[in-house]
Amino acid sequence: MASEASKSAVPLLKDELDIVIPTIRNLDFLEMWRPFFQPYHLIIVQDGDPSKVIKVPEGFDYELYNRNDINRILGPKASCISFKDSACRCFGYMVSKKKYIYTIDDDCFVAKDPSGKDINALEQHIKNLLSPSTPFFFNTLYDPYRDGADFVRGYPFSLRVGVPTAVSHGLWLNIPDYDAPTQLVKPLERNTRYVDAVMTIPKGTLFPMCGMNLAFNRELIGPAMYFGLMGDGQPIGRYDDMWAGWCTKVICDHLGLGVKTGLPYIWHSKASNPFVNLKKEYKGIYWQEELIPFFQSVTLPKECTTVQKCYIEISKQVKAKLGKVDEYFLKLADAMVTWIEAWDEINASAELPNGLKK
Amino acid sequence: MASEASKSAVPLLKDELDIVIPTIRNLDFLEMWRPFFQPYHLIIVQDGDPSKVIKVPEGFDYELYNRNDINRILGPKASCISFKDSACRCFGYMVSKKKYIYTIDDDCFVAKDPSGKDINALEQHIKNLLSPSTPFFFNTLYDPYRDGADFVRGYPFSLRVGVPTAVSHGLWLNIPDYDAPTQLVKPLERNTRYVDAVMTIPKGTLFPMCGMNLAFNRELIGPAMYFGLMGDGQPIGRYDDMWAGWCTKVICDHLGLGVKTGLPYIWHSKASNPFVNLKKEYKGIYWQEELIPFFQSVTLPKECTTVQKCYIEISKQVKAKLGKVDEYFLKLADAMVTWIEAWDEINASAELPNGLKK
Repeated sequence: MASEASKSAVPLLKDELDIVIPTIRNLDFLEMWRPFFQPYHLIIVQDGDPSKVIKVPEGFDYELYNRNDINRILGPKASCISFKDSACRCFGYMVSKKKYIYTIDDDCFVAKDPSGKDINALEQHIKNLLSPSTPFFFNTLYDPYRDGADFVRGYPFSLRVGVPTAVSHGLWLNIPDYDAPTQLVKPLERNTRYVDAVMTIPKGTLFPMCGMNLAFNRELIGPAMYFGLMGDGQPIGRYDDMWAGWCTKVICDHLGLGVKTGLPYIWHSKASNPFVNLKKEYKGIYWQEELIPFFQSVTLPKECTTVQKCYIEISKQVKAKLGKVDEYFLKLADAMVTWIEAWDEINASAELPNGLKK
Repeated sequence: MASEASKSAVPLLKDELDIVIPTIRNLDFLEMWRPFFQPYHLIIVQDGDPSKVIKVPEGFDYELYNRNDINRILGPKASCISFKDSACRCFGYMVSKKKYIYTIDDDCFVAKDPSGKDINALEQHIKNLLSPSTPFFFNTLYDPYRDGADFVRGYPFSLRVGVPTAVSHGLWLNIPDYDAPTQLVKPLERNTRYVDAVMTIPKGTLFPMCGMNLAFNRELIGPAMYFGLMGDGQPIGRYDDMWAGWCTKVICDHLGLGVKTGLPYIWHSKASNPFVNLKKEYKGIYWQEELIPFFQSVTLPKECTTVQKCYIEISKQVKAKLGKVDEYFLKLADAMVTWIEAWDEINASAELPNGLKK
């Protein structure tokens, strides 16, 4: 199937995937992505000053939402969408009508593979999402569904059918996704290693999910992709994608869905300011020491059969167990509930007959 | 440290590592490995007819054990060492006096990296063993201790010190390590993908450990590296390394030790006969469907503070829970106990003052 996909003339999933981009500036970076992104619909979430006009290069099909739009569409529930932080991107996931989402930062460019060829990151994400995952047992030759690979000796046959893939986490050449302390200690470090692999993150294992180059199946896992309360008026930043990743992984493990990481790479052009990052991160760096054991110990009851039910259950456990770490988590737990209410409202109305919206 | 290591003139761990090779033929394959292996001591375990003379290329420092030697040294306990199967290699682990073991099959040759350079597989294994593992949380940029890599944003700082590495599992270019059914279905498939990564297999995740290109810290995990009862007089073959891998991983997880997989690659020259393999494997293919859930559910009590205690405990659980799958597992459970007794006997005598042996 992967092989079929790469040969298709029509762009894969053309009418089933939205590209979500959070931004505060003109989207000139799209010029470089034109050969790969132009067939797809874009959802642009404009952060910061809504009166600013964001220029989108000609020829792209897009809808754009600024803060006024978000407030108008969600009303009081808009409080769950972060402002002055790229966490606002999750609004785009909510209003999409498509089955798949690809989200990318506007400082990410097309990378080259070792042969010098431009990497079609979106195509690789789609291949990752359309082939199964193998979370229950590790395959030492990595993705067994890739051309030229398979399951190795000793891999139980009953597990070879795999499970549906919910998330495809891509990586970055050039500027690695380091935290502020590591940025400060290694200001010149660049990621030059192209690792030609895609792998399933095993069941029960948490990982740091970066939102820079990320695709997911919105039908399978969308409501878990809430990027939390960050930025304006909040005590932390730069943990939006991490939070979403931890919640998502726990829910995928519970529901029997797969999370892949590895290819594709994008070219991350510019390191953010480590001093600014340190200010945003320092509470998160402390809190994550409590958050990881918390997420490692979360168990979801059998009754949690949908992503929404799982997510509400996690919000309760956040309130009960993380509230004592900081009152921020009480507010976050409430916002998690608001997010699900807003998601269900927006997506229920989308399902009215004849495409009518409320 | 890895960088220092690669520049050292004296071969790494020269007096602390033995290379264990099981064989039935002349060891001409060592010629290709001469630049990398010659400084090290070899332990050759001769399988099959003990009257056959195995030729070892000149200049190598080695000791060789045939079946008569094994019977003489272990007496009645020799029953735990397989005959007419490469599982006999674990006898070499037992009689080694070194801290580290590298084991390789005699149909494995030096592979080339993508730049065309010969890969010093042993050096890479040593780097893997001398740097920590990270089993508690997944790092998306793979081995964080490698030059040019680090822990990414969202990786808890308290986990960045890692744990000691017990096992380094290397891979194979050319002939992949497939089971007989996959060999039959894909007779022409070759592994040509060089994945430039080393990673820790997360805690709680089992993997298929191949004995073809494998290194480990004998002091940390040696007694778990029992390759079981295979070959002559036994109902299965080709599950020796798998069995060792499952036991080893469960014990590493319990004791807080790390298992790495990935680099280095060797060149695996010849596919074994799939029809012969099918005969050896067919019971294993069926049994592994029970073995994986068994090993996934094994829990070791706190009192199991040494590898030996863990291993004896697993042998009890094998007897209790797998005995009903097939009586073979009753015999195997007894052999596991014999193996530990033999290990302790051989290694206790090795620790007598002045290097005296019994």
